[in-house]
Amino acid sequence: MKPDVAVIGGGQLARMMQQAAIGLGVRIRLLAERPDVSAAQVIPDHVVGDQTDLDDLRAAVSDAAVVTFDHEHVPPEHLAALEAEGHACRPGPHALIYAQDKRAMRERLTGIGVPCPRWAVVESADDLTRFGLPAVLKTTRGGYDGKGVWVVRDPAEADEAFASGQPLIVEELVDFRRELSAQVARRPSGEVVAYPVVESTQVDGVCKEVVAPAPDHPEGAEDIATRIATELDVVGMLAVELFQTQDGRLLVNELAMRPHNTGHWSIDGAATSQFENHLRAVLDLPLGPTDPHHPWSVMVNILGGSVEDLASQRPVVLEDDGVHVHLYGKTVKAGRKVGHVTVVGDDLETVRARARRAADLFEKGSTDG
Amino acid sequence: MKPDVAVIGGGQLARMMQQAAIGLGVRIRLLAERPDVSAAQVIPDHVVGDQTDLDDLRAAVSDAAVVTFDHEHVPPEHLAALEAEGHACRPGPHALIYAQDKRAMRERLTGIGVPCPRWAVVESADDLTRFGLPAVLKTTRGGYDGKGVWVVRDPAEADEAFASGQPLIVEELVDFRRELSAQVARRPSGEVVAYPVVESTQVDGVCKEVVAPAPDHPEGAEDIATRIATELDVVGMLAVELFQTQDGRLLVNELAMRPHNTGHWSIDGAATSQFENHLRAVLDLPLGPTDPHHPWSVMVNILGGSVEDLASQRPVVLEDDGVHVHLYGKTVKAGRKVGHVTVVGDDLETVRARARRAADLFEKGSTDG
Repeated sequence: MKPDVAVIGGGQLARMMQQAAIGLGVRIRLLAERPDVSAAQVIPDHVVGDQTDLDDLRAAVSDAAVVTFDHEHVPPEHLAALEAEGHACRPGPHALIYAQDKRAMRERLTGIGVPCPRWAVVESADDLTRFGLPAVLKTTRGGYDGKGVWVVRDPAEADEAFASGQPLIVEELVDFRRELSAQVARRPSGEVVAYPVVESTQVDGVCKEVVAPAPDHPEGAEDIATRIATELDVVGMLAVELFQTQDGRLLVNELAMRPHNTGHWSIDGAATSQFENHLRAVLDLPLGPTDPHHPWSVMVNILGGSVEDLASQRPVVLEDDGVHVHLYGKTVKAGRKVGHVTVVGDDLETVRARARRAADLFEKGSTDG
Repeated sequence: MKPDVAVIGGGQLARMMQQAAIGLGVRIRLLAERPDVSAAQVIPDHVVGDQTDLDDLRAAVSDAAVVTFDHEHVPPEHLAALEAEGHACRPGPHALIYAQDKRAMRERLTGIGVPCPRWAVVESADDLTRFGLPAVLKTTRGGYDGKGVWVVRDPAEADEAFASGQPLIVEELVDFRRELSAQVARRPSGEVVAYPVVESTQVDGVCKEVVAPAPDHPEGAEDIATRIATELDVVGMLAVELFQTQDGRLLVNELAMRPHNTGHWSIDGAATSQFENHLRAVLDLPLGPTDPHHPWSVMVNILGGSVEDLASQRPVVLEDDGVHVHLYGKTVKAGRKVGHVTVVGDDLETVRARARRAADLFEKGSTDG
């Protein structure tokens, strides 16, 4: 059967798209990195191949009118080729480039007046100290989950970044109070729906915990996300990661044009999950409501720890009968995102404590230490 | 990879189990009637075979410790063979027989004092009029969705039933005010959780609409379901379909030991769907909460009508942005269950009207007539 949409990349985002696709009756064809990756375990119609190989991409998208993504790692020139061959990439390469290339993103956001940290292209070692030290060095391409990002307190700490041989930008190290994420879905017709702004906590550059909605969040984050989605012609889910500074300003940190870790709470906590709205958006279907079911939802990632067999922890975790468990079918490796848990309810402190406890059990087999 | 559970039967119930399985990280092996059936479209690990062929069953369950079902059509002797070979059938054959054989069910329920319509085994044509006419004739085995059931107003109308050559029972035709369904999940340890009792409307013997919870429902239905699950040692979901009589009594009509059409609302309307609780129960995991998210949930089945391409109606249906769509990937045939829609909200009449409109659009392409 002809697929409705080809999804490039077989990680947990594609896996969770499949849960929504089953309901909508949407047929997914997957390009999977390996036969046993997370999404290939639950999507029968998959092709194994490399997202940087145009022929592999062609094999996966062959009879699919619409193409979307689990990640941002498809080379822009391949996306252009697929578009030229009649496939609608959603988001399209003209938008996705701003999630792939941090220099392009900073230039564009600055151009449309969206507040960002101070930044500059690094052309020589002298540029490193342009905003003083400490500063943040980033490769323009290929970074994620803390990779390709260096916080430099001393010029010598930039050696690794320079040694990478990749184009770099430097940004001021923002003295932030906390990190927020604003997510919207946008369809080709222009319709946009915004999810409640959430607060996220990162550990070692990896998202660990999300509270939805963000307590006492400042106005304006939804508007920034809606504006970026519209100006950049994003189709599908857009996540705008923001710093809220100590003095209350909002500065854009990163963009992601796909379902995002900071939106996983929506599966159990919102009227329409980010995965369903991503599929609706890329298929140009009307978007679903984003209202939370409960006052608070807390999502905590399960990062690979001492527990090797996650299933062994399900009995004890599910004894707390309001914990929603999401396991990704991935082999446990130290620090790897292998699942998440979500708890919803009326009291934030209780909800958060229960979600943290559940994640601890999956990571360590206990809640001690 | 070794499956966690083998599911026999590739219909929409197995398909919707997969949505829950993806979250829980549960691996399903499917026995599918054909390579393209509803659940085989979304479960990569499937074996094509016939559920009445013991070798096909063995091939499907080979390395699965636990076996469960999309339907009641596996012959009891095959279930006994699988159990003897070390597979845990959940529900087990000693329980499932009461969902497979209506005579056994009536005898057992009568034995434990659960209220049923008056009934008798039909040994000769004379037995037909035992409770007067009209009466209801049923084959003891193999009936579902109105098949194997005859409402007989004149003895001549029993000819088809007698011609079937199958064992029959006769029941009084209950003058009911409405039909209710009480669902519980039960795990081997004995833990039971009850969903809110719902009201269902049948058309030509097929479930068409479910309101959750049932408005002004009488006390006692949950208790009846809990009692049956416990006494009969049911594992997994149990649905008890009940008549509420004009004079207010509750009489058990049918039992189903699997997720049931009257519980589909729980996917979008309850804290834990019946599909997740079925999996949790058969895997002996703690059961999830059954609280509704909203005061009312209405589910309306999409029965095959004049629309052949259901996907063509998604854009207009989803314009009502609170409609949850579930399409089963089945070819449209007249009257066949090909999907359902659920709407949740605060006002029953509004919620019901929106759900009916959505189903009408999928069936007829319009909401006229």
